Amino acid sequence: MPAWVKINMLREPKVSRPALVQGLPGLGFVGKLAVGYLIDELNLKPFAEIYSSYLVLPDGNTGVQIREDGTYYLPRIELYEVTQSKKHAILITGEVQPTIHGQYELVSQILDLAQRYGCDLVIALGGFQTPVERELGKVYGVFNNHNLESTLKSLGVEITRSGAITGACGVILGLGNQRSLPSIGLLGATRGEYPDMEAARSVLKVLTKILGLELNFARLDKQIAELKSRLEAIRRIQAEAFPRMPPERKPSDKSPFYI
Amino acid sequence: MPAWVKINMLREPKVSRPALVQGLPGLGFVGKLAVGYLIDELNLKPFAEIYSSYLVLPDGNTGVQIREDGTYYLPRIELYEVTQSKKHAILITGEVQPTIHGQYELVSQILDLAQRYGCDLVIALGGFQTPVERELGKVYGVFNNHNLESTLKSLGVEITRSGAITGACGVILGLGNQRSLPSIGLLGATRGEYPDMEAARSVLKVLTKILGLELNFARLDKQIAELKSRLEAIRRIQAEAFPRMPPERKPSDKSPFYI
Amino acid sequence: MPAWVKINMLREPKVSRPALVQGLPGLGFVGKLAVGYLIDELNLKPFAEIYSSYLVLPDGNTGVQIREDGTYYLPRIELYEVTQSKKHAILITGEVQPTIHGQYELVSQILDLAQRYGCDLVIALGGFQTPVERELGKVYGVFNNHNLESTLKSLGVEITRSGAITGACGVILGLGNQRSLPSIGLLGATRGEYPDMEAARSVLKVLTKILGLELNFARLDKQIAELKSRLEAIRRIQAEAFPRMPPERKPSDKSPFYI
Amino acid sequence: MPAWVKINMLREPKVSRPALVQGLPGLGFVGKLAVGYLIDELNLKPFAEIYSSYLVLPDGNTGVQIREDGTYYLPRIELYEVTQSKKHAILITGEVQPTIHGQYELVSQILDLAQRYGCDLVIALGGFQTPVERELGKVYGVFNNHNLESTLKSLGVEITRSGAITGACGVILGLGNQRSLPSIGLLGATRGEYPDMEAARSVLKVLTKILGLELNFARLDKQIAELKSRLEAIRRIQAEAFPRMPPERKPSDKSPFYI
Repeated sequence: MPAWVKINMLREPKVSRPALVQGLPGLGFVGKLAVGYLIDELNLKPFAEIYSSYLVLPDGNTGVQIREDGTYYLPRIELYEVTQSKKHAILITGEVQPTIHGQYELVSQILDLAQRYGCDLVIALGGFQTPVERELGKVYGVFNNHNLESTLKSLGVEITRSGAITGACGVILGLGNQRSLPSIGLLGATRGEYPDMEAARSVLKVLTKILGLELNFARLDKQIAELKSRLEAIRRIQAEAFPRMPPERKPSDKSPFYI
Repeated sequence: MPAWVKINMLREPKVSRPALVQGLPGLGFVGKLAVGYLIDELNLKPFAEIYSSYLVLPDGNTGVQIREDGTYYLPRIELYEVTQSKKHAILITGEVQPTIHGQYELVSQILDLAQRYGCDLVIALGGFQTPVERELGKVYGVFNNHNLESTLKSLGVEITRSGAITGACGVILGLGNQRSLPSIGLLGATRGEYPDMEAARSVLKVLTKILGLELNFARLDKQIAELKSRLEAIRRIQAEAFPRMPPERKPSDKSPFYI
Repeated sequence: MPAWVKINMLREPKVSRPALVQGLPGLGFVGKLAVGYLIDELNLKPFAEIYSSYLVLPDGNTGVQIREDGTYYLPRIELYEVTQSKKHAILITGEVQPTIHGQYELVSQILDLAQRYGCDLVIALGGFQTPVERELGKVYGVFNNHNLESTLKSLGVEITRSGAITGACGVILGLGNQRSLPSIGLLGATRGEYPDMEAARSVLKVLTKILGLELNFARLDKQIAELKSRLEAIRRIQAEAFPRMPPERKPSDKSPFYI
Repeated sequence: MPAWVKINMLREPKVSRPALVQGLPGLGFVGKLAVGYLIDELNLKPFAEIYSSYLVLPDGNTGVQIREDGTYYLPRIELYEVTQSKKHAILITGEVQPTIHGQYELVSQILDLAQRYGCDLVIALGGFQTPVERELGKVYGVFNNHNLESTLKSLGVEITRSGAITGACGVILGLGNQRSLPSIGLLGATRGEYPDMEAARSVLKVLTKILGLELNFARLDKQIAELKSRLEAIRRIQAEAFPRMPPERKPSDKSPFYI
């Protein structure tokens, strides 16, 4: 597999010493949802697209996705800039993770690009799988530099003490550290069973504080409230239909898994 | 896997600003059958061959196929030129698709070659899987440029609104778009269960109109008629042998799949 | 997988316009046995070794094999020269085939090396799987040049009319043809169930005629006779132990397979 | 997969004509335990780290491991120097083996680095799987140079006569030999069922003699004694709980396997 990677600059981003914030799909879609909300709310347009043979359709095939208007697009990673914040940022998102063989190569090229604009902070967003009810809502953090530890703690982030962060989320933290870039992982606790907007909101609240960004969470709050009431309705209907069912078995306390 | 790709120029093609028309094997062999009929009917000879470690035998092995005269050949992609049309064309065909890891690399090299001759239009031919009887015969289209949409509609092509186009057919559309080449996918509706000459004819009729090419469809019409009468005969024999069999179960209306 | 290939020249071969003769392990070990007998009988020493990450242990792992004296060796391909013949030759053999992803790369490098010495003929030895008793002993041939056809026929070789030649044996024929080198495949008919010395002898007899090489087959004849008498003894013992067993079922006449 | 390999020099090692000693995880963790004890006992700090897309987490994923303090690290190979010995040494260790596709590339780069410091001896440590009780404690050896054979014998090493050494342990021996570096494999006999500190001690005793290194084995002896008494206690408890259980079935005398 040759390293077919192409970065398409749509325009020059107007960022200065940005943080690089990665939100690719992963556990509970936490990172992607968080970055996606930011993009929607700030009405951002991508400044660069990355195409690569390492980016395949969700079914593992190469090819294009068709849009509702009859146009189509290759799987890609998109880069956006945030300049509304005290700390500028470059956001990375997309519909797919790079395949395992391309993560080092792609993430390296993204770090190269970000460093051309003076990037001095890497923030990887992701999910932290937990079956423990009381952990939901929390944000777990890792860091490569003990100065960052106190920042994280002051923002209410719990420090992670074991486990692994897999996929592009882990690789960008690893390669950021390798380049001596201060690097933070923010992992929203999630059951990981469906796209978890609550975990994304928790992560996003920490992120906006780090970046010094005013963000309106009203739309996200409303979406979460709606989803909750829909789920509640479903539960009620099920309870009426099967009144004598035993209470739902708690998932086992298996060791946490992050992505 | 190193990028072992070799383009063998057999002669210089005499094309000017050609369309690049891809008809590799895929769903219902629609693209390959369409290009194959064009090659036979116009009595074309290849001007280039592409050999690659990404082109393997249909069973997935490397090796050569043996011909009836005792000679043999490596799996390859062949390029032909069409100059009998108002719009010149380069046709791409072969007996195999590149392996998934080589599609970006191979298609890139083919686009490089075509652009050396001023290629300004990419047309990918393929099949569109449908279980719906009334869709058979139709041609579905995607495009990367809204000028192309009206052309397609004026030729009776239905615009596709969802799904994916996988394999080299999707990749050439994606990379064509990436190079800002106007790009069209023409997908013949097919059950995809056998080489579908009717779907190929439908696609070929649209293609010849786009290229401004006079093509004699008599031989193809005859082949289709013969095939239909053979299938009809088989059905009659089966009906006589098993008179009380229930009517054939309609395939389920599963979501369409393109290649 | 990077293209890790290293050719270790042990000395300069003294060949002039040699044929390149490949005998790697394959169906019935025909090619390897033929080249191996030639090496033993002519008491040849390798002039070059090829090491590569594409050459793995028979179990698919990387590593080294241990010899009886406590030394060890990496999987490798060895090259020998034959100068006792009218037509000089370079022999290729080894204990393993390159992995499928490395066959184009490795075979290309071997052809490069051979062409530096003026190689003007490629001969790939292999097996031709057949369940048909009366075909055993025959040698089947393919070629890329009709001048070679009459040579093959005059040596009693049957021309192959269909099928495929897979693996490095097929790839060297394909790439030889691609470089416009006259290329011949000699395939000994074999059941392919065990290392087939008789098929190797048949192939070797044709090869020595092509090369104009005097070769003493006495040792090979003796080995075959011994093997036959051992197999015959086993059959007799079985027949006495199970006298009423039905005759061995003939293998089905499935389509032939070559390697 | 592109050859993404990065060697991070933390400082210049002060070695002169060192032996290169590899102790990566493998059968019974023999090599890794031996090198690990050396590092702990001599209180060594790494002078270089190697990062690579060929080094993945134990579960096969890319990503980072999280430490107890909330920091994290990419899978990597570490290099240490030993200068307390008559023969200087560079130690290679890590938590993972390179993936099979990267072993040639990574080991080549490590040999390049070692040879820049005048490396003139390769020693690969590993396990030798045996079900035979009386072989436990023994060290088996391979070598590429008959001068080394007498050295090994004089140190009580048994010469291995067959089999294979797989993984990076085999590849470093193979590539060392290829570069004409005297190369030794020291394989501690082990059941391979758990991290085998006794086999590691046996191997380490031979290694320290070869290097002319004074090493205090007291801590290792104590660890082994503690482990033995714990295992003995477990056996006693089991014997009391299930007094009539038949004696443990001896593992079959299957052919040995090395790593």
